[in-house]
Amino acid sequence: MSDWLISLKTETPQEGFELAITLARKGVGYTQPSAEVRKKLRPEYEENADSLTFASQVIAVHFQTVAAANNYWK
Amino acid sequence: MSDWLISLKTETPQEGFELAITLARKGVGYTQPSAEVRKKLRPEYEENADSLTFASQVIAVHFQTVAAANNYWK
Amino acid sequence: MSDWLISLKTETPQEGFELAITLARKGVGYTQPSAEVRKKLRPEYEENADSLTFASQVIAVHFQTVAAANNYWK
Amino acid sequence: MSDWLISLKTETPQEGFELAITLARKGVGYTQPSAEVRKKLRPEYEENADSLTFASQVIAVHFQTVAAANNYWK
Amino acid sequence: MSDWLISLKTETPQEGFELAITLARKGVGYTQPSAEVRKKLRPEYEENADSLTFASQVIAVHFQTVAAANNYWK
Amino acid sequence: MSDWLISLKTETPQEGFELAITLARKGVGYTQPSAEVRKKLRPEYEENADSLTFASQVIAVHFQTVAAANNYWK
Repeated sequence: MSDWLISLKTETPQEGFELAITLARKGVGYTQPSAEVRKKLRPEYEENADSLTFASQVIAVHFQTVAAANNYWK
Repeated sequence: MSDWLISLKTETPQEGFELAITLARKGVGYTQPSAEVRKKLRPEYEENADSLTFASQVIAVHFQTVAAANNYWK
Repeated sequence: MSDWLISLKTETPQEGFELAITLARKGVGYTQPSAEVRKKLRPEYEENADSLTFASQVIAVHFQTVAAANNYWK
Repeated sequence: MSDWLISLKTETPQEGFELAITLARKGVGYTQPSAEVRKKLRPEYEENADSLTFASQVIAVHFQTVAAANNYWK
Repeated sequence: MSDWLISLKTETPQEGFELAITLARKGVGYTQPSAEVRKKLRPEYEENADSLTFASQVIAVHFQTVAAANNYWK
Repeated sequence: MSDWLISLKTETPQEGFELAITLARKGVGYTQPSAEVRKKLRPEYEENADSLTFASQVIAVHFQTVAAANNYWK
């Protein structure tokens, strides 16, 4: 896998949030490397309320890390 | 998507809590971008006790981040 | 909604724990604003062991925040 | 409810772990105040592997707080 | 119960990881003190993928605590 | 089990993320030591959306630890 994570620094909190989303997706991607399988599974969670809350939670955990890495963009 | 997160700073803890709610919802919104689908799913979790606890937990994780960013409004 | 969270400071750890409970409940309240619906759902989680553990976990996450805000009442 | 949490300080890590257990149980106790109902629910989680793991997780979250409050008993 | 947790300090990160496993198991052990029952439940989670992920998560939460207690073995 | 975790330091955030994945898998490996059983369980979670999100969450928790250990690669 090529370089995809050079730094945790971002210009703004919003970019930090989007980096958190990338990290959450990469966690899935390393576990299930087949893009085809992941695509097949999309309807399973995209239209399930708890699955979406769960995805949001993983983003929240990563956003803690990214925010700390950026000293909360103070 | 336009700018929606300029800063983690808020005037009061309550505004910080409300920002945490926004962050939790944005995590869902990025994962399921269709407002129509999200609306369809509302009854699924709004009237399910565990789903509400789950939503509350994601808010709690984000509130940790927002509170730290504001030095706990000390 | 009126002011309900002015400060994270509490006199004692126990009051901090009780504030964590309030925060957990507010997370539910913002997601499901109808007191009537919330009341209807009480039996669903009040007599389910895992639901109670789940509620306890959200309190635990908020208690981390409140404890840090109070410098652990040292 | 009488005073049950005066301090997060403990003499040893083990006492800190046991305080974390108390905090996890109190989170349940505030949510379901009836000792009778809680007793009735014990078999539901005491003999379920995931429920026990879940209980262990809430203890883990509280242990983070208690350990930080004690500066990790360094 | 005899003394089982004297210190959070370990020589290496790996020993710290193994201490985190001990802490996760103790959380279960305090909740279900019967070794016989716990043994009976082993097949329930040892051959269930999500149960194993769940067990791994509790270890991860404790490893955060142990790693902080050891200043990340820097 | 031989030495597998000498240090939490990594050269880059990406290597830190990959270490977090290793830690998450080791948590499973210590709980279910049989490689044969773990292999048998792979289809159970590799093609289940929530199981993949769950795996991603455990990685996120470990990534917090690894990132802090590396002072966020600042």
